Amino acid sequence: MKHARIRFEGQVHAVTVEAGNAVRLLDGRLLGEDQVEWLPPATGNMFALGLNYADHAAELAFKPPTEPLAFIKSPGTYTGHNQKTWRPDNVAYMHYECELVAVIGKTARNVKRENALDYLAGYTVCNDYAIRDYLENYYRPNLRVKNRDATTPVGPWIVDVADVPDPSDLKLRTWINGELRQEGSTKDMIFDIPYLIEYLSSFMTLQPGDMIATGTPEGLADVVPGDEVVVEVEGVGRLVNNIVSEAAFFASRREA
Amino acid sequence: MKHARIRFEGQVHAVTVEAGNAVRLLDGRLLGEDQVEWLPPATGNMFALGLNYADHAAELAFKPPTEPLAFIKSPGTYTGHNQKTWRPDNVAYMHYECELVAVIGKTARNVKRENALDYLAGYTVCNDYAIRDYLENYYRPNLRVKNRDATTPVGPWIVDVADVPDPSDLKLRTWINGELRQEGSTKDMIFDIPYLIEYLSSFMTLQPGDMIATGTPEGLADVVPGDEVVVEVEGVGRLVNNIVSEAAFFASRREA
Repeated sequence: MKHARIRFEGQVHAVTVEAGNAVRLLDGRLLGEDQVEWLPPATGNMFALGLNYADHAAELAFKPPTEPLAFIKSPGTYTGHNQKTWRPDNVAYMHYECELVAVIGKTARNVKRENALDYLAGYTVCNDYAIRDYLENYYRPNLRVKNRDATTPVGPWIVDVADVPDPSDLKLRTWINGELRQEGSTKDMIFDIPYLIEYLSSFMTLQPGDMIATGTPEGLADVVPGDEVVVEVEGVGRLVNNIVSEAAFFASRREA
Repeated sequence: MKHARIRFEGQVHAVTVEAGNAVRLLDGRLLGEDQVEWLPPATGNMFALGLNYADHAAELAFKPPTEPLAFIKSPGTYTGHNQKTWRPDNVAYMHYECELVAVIGKTARNVKRENALDYLAGYTVCNDYAIRDYLENYYRPNLRVKNRDATTPVGPWIVDVADVPDPSDLKLRTWINGELRQEGSTKDMIFDIPYLIEYLSSFMTLQPGDMIATGTPEGLADVVPGDEVVVEVEGVGRLVNNIVSEAAFFASRREA
């Protein structure tokens, strides 16, 4: 089953998603994909992985990490399916990053990898855009790279764990304006989801709603205002985002 | 005026703090400092600065940064005044870090330094403990250094901006078991509070309740279970914390 959060007529609703991406409200009403505002399906902390695919590390001329390079994103960066993301003025490179996201379902501390999937609510997708201009080193993307407002589309929904038989063998694909630009597989992750849950929960408690964004494979390219960017994880979801200029984004935010 | 959040008889209250650290509830009741559980006075994002005092950077054998080294802490790391923090088993160095914290009071985007203080709710204090064992490089403290549960005491309260005439000239001091171990001044910050607000708000929106932890001066030392650690920022507050073992901490949490 697919679970989402949407806004409709000013109210936030927890919904299930049916055929054709129609959403079912708790009161039984069925609404079309374009009738609702899609929100991030989870709102906890996001622990994101840097360089978790060896081919992507090579693409950036970095050696693969020997320990997960995890960093935190603040919730102001999240946005939903079919929303707009802005390209900052005067930057040279804004790259999409298609990622599988594991969503925590129950409090997790000192979890062993063999039990790790028991702690998940399910999976979603994110596009963890990066402003490459500021990526000055191997060890961390600084906040100017990865923590701008609404630059992390997440969603459209969370798929139950039971509906994804093997999260370590899923195709990842990104299209810009309909053209396939990035293609990889979660089988090439350096640190897989059970490992990441074991690692993170060994020193901090993961809470329901927390997300682990598991990194992106190679195949990055610049995006510009006007681009439609679609990231898809096989069997999980297809997340659409549109790039607008800085001025257009903040003008529409002021109107909202 | 001083504003705090406390728990009393199972309820969370927003309170003001009076002489002798007595807290005044909204219904007029006055409670003693030891009658209440002190909570972190703000619960937004914490943007923390690494190496923001040149003497501390030198102490760690790093060169001072030329741009703020800001990182995010997740709220699970926060704890309140008079609470317990745990020292992980099998680590060599757990260091206190006395820091002045600027608390955002209204939505801040593209704020200029000359107006920056208008966006503050006030100031508080934090002890941004670090597990030095895992500090592998200059650019970032990884999550094992800085993101463990309840290892960032914050508080006891927020002092109004108007009650701190010059935040760039305040003494910082840390005592372990009554012995003065760290002493510095906010005048030695590399990037001051107006600069940090200008910098951070130039690429992301700061929200009310967000905190900027402005870094610590030199004078770090290891702490062990049984230690009482007091960090104080002149004119802002004195924050008490007690170190316990990993086993004792998680046993008491299970009981709670």
